[in-house]
Amino acid sequence: LLAKLTILDNLKETGKIGLEELSLKTGLLREQIMQTIQGLSKTYLINIDGDIVKWLPADNPSTIRPWGWNINHVVSIGSTQIAIRGMGLWSILVAEHQYSGRGRHGKGWISDLGGLWISYRLPVKPWVANVIPIALSIILIKIFEQIFGLKAGIKWPNDIVVNDKKIAGMIIEGEYVSDTMIVNIGVGINVNNEPPIPGTTSLKKIVGKLVPRNPILASLTGWISRLDKILIDREQLESMYRDHLVTLNRRVYVETLTEVFEAKAVDIDESGDLIVEKNGIKKKLNPLTTLRIRHLD
Amino acid sequence: LLAKLTILDNLKETGKIGLEELSLKTGLLREQIMQTIQGLSKTYLINIDGDIVKWLPADNPSTIRPWGWNINHVVSIGSTQIAIRGMGLWSILVAEHQYSGRGRHGKGWISDLGGLWISYRLPVKPWVANVIPIALSIILIKIFEQIFGLKAGIKWPNDIVVNDKKIAGMIIEGEYVSDTMIVNIGVGINVNNEPPIPGTTSLKKIVGKLVPRNPILASLTGWISRLDKILIDREQLESMYRDHLVTLNRRVYVETLTEVFEAKAVDIDESGDLIVEKNGIKKKLNPLTTLRIRHLD
Repeated sequence: LLAKLTILDNLKETGKIGLEELSLKTGLLREQIMQTIQGLSKTYLINIDGDIVKWLPADNPSTIRPWGWNINHVVSIGSTQIAIRGMGLWSILVAEHQYSGRGRHGKGWISDLGGLWISYRLPVKPWVANVIPIALSIILIKIFEQIFGLKAGIKWPNDIVVNDKKIAGMIIEGEYVSDTMIVNIGVGINVNNEPPIPGTTSLKKIVGKLVPRNPILASLTGWISRLDKILIDREQLESMYRDHLVTLNRRVYVETLTEVFEAKAVDIDESGDLIVEKNGIKKKLNPLTTLRIRHLD
Repeated sequence: LLAKLTILDNLKETGKIGLEELSLKTGLLREQIMQTIQGLSKTYLINIDGDIVKWLPADNPSTIRPWGWNINHVVSIGSTQIAIRGMGLWSILVAEHQYSGRGRHGKGWISDLGGLWISYRLPVKPWVANVIPIALSIILIKIFEQIFGLKAGIKWPNDIVVNDKKIAGMIIEGEYVSDTMIVNIGVGINVNNEPPIPGTTSLKKIVGKLVPRNPILASLTGWISRLDKILIDREQLESMYRDHLVTLNRRVYVETLTEVFEAKAVDIDESGDLIVEKNGIKKKLNPLTTLRIRHLD
């Protein structure tokens, strides 16, 4: 892993580097470099052309400069979602690898090479903050449809799934600074990485080959730039969210802060809570207190 | 390991950094930082003073500027001995960790945190090149004696041992450039790292506490700067080498390029070859063709 990370680090700024130079910079023999590149080429659009190692610009986040954003691309970091807290408004942090990636409820988030692990930091009006998870779910579904023609769904509350397997997730955290809210939006997309655990998938696996990541990153950033506008029509968002919610009418296994049970997901209310029914008794599940949910059928 | 490496990397230039800043730079939570520092403090003179993480300057190779040398201090690299090839004459490369460290005969060299893993690049007169291993063995023994009052010995050909356990090793590689020889001298010293494998030890283990590494690095660099002068009295060097050679009169297990056997080490000749005797028959062992040797008594 360290050899791969060092090579990516030496490659990202210029997108290409000679084998000899790479050998001297990494302190690896030419054969070791070749072997490591071969490994990298399973998760990156990186190849060796003669004596030059090349990273396809469309797969290298260091090559894009989204308008109006300060973008930072690092190879390895604890968690982009922690580090983004120290950056200015309208910052993006993309990492190739997180060694301490974070998911919801303090859970870990496996962030192997080849995925897209991104955090955004931007100000929003406080009233829109709690619609962001809904909007972002729709945005990700639209991106997968537009770029790959994929039909993705939503596993309540905000996992993006394809054929019931998780392909993307998000974590939204906010801080108030006087009367604006600063949100740190973390998005993880399994692009060219191996699906990290059972029940997950990746674009590479679905499409059957490596896909360049920058079109996804650019599109996502474009949508997030226009977040305030998207959030205006809240009713339409909620109806789209409901249309894509694959959890409805399914039997689910539920872990909350206080209990564990199985039930049937029957509805969703206007605040986004999931209504489940067990033995004729209805119960509301709130995302903040629901640690885990699994589809059973 | 990645968390430790990132913290060292953020700490090395200034030698101290606030916990909050470190958290934002590494993308790790404050608790994760504290925990990682606690791990680091087992192999480094690093501690937390209030909200500031501090690395004792005498243990941080980034703080020293040996006269006449270009010194580079990196946290992690494949092998300093490969990377030094791309540097100018009179360069030093110190790494906290090598993920592809090299020993003699293409063997690996475990290079954990807390040790001293150094490569030097300098020009020498061709005739002195083959005396360097002998001189460097003496130099290391003198350093261990002067700084720690330790009596170290030499396990043929160039391992430095204390109580028959390896504490330091070297690899000498050369290139001719017209009529001078450029040598890349690699030295590995188990200082505050855990002894990597059975049969090895470290200064921390012998002394019973962490020791600052810069006095060792500075002293070693001073000796290597004067290498040409040291090498003049070759006879004295050879006699000192023989005096410290703990392999003599021991039974040894030997692996050469062509055979494996046990014998008794009886002498050393003027070229540094070890003379062993088996069933009354004497045999010369050359360092270049002897892959492995082990003391049996």
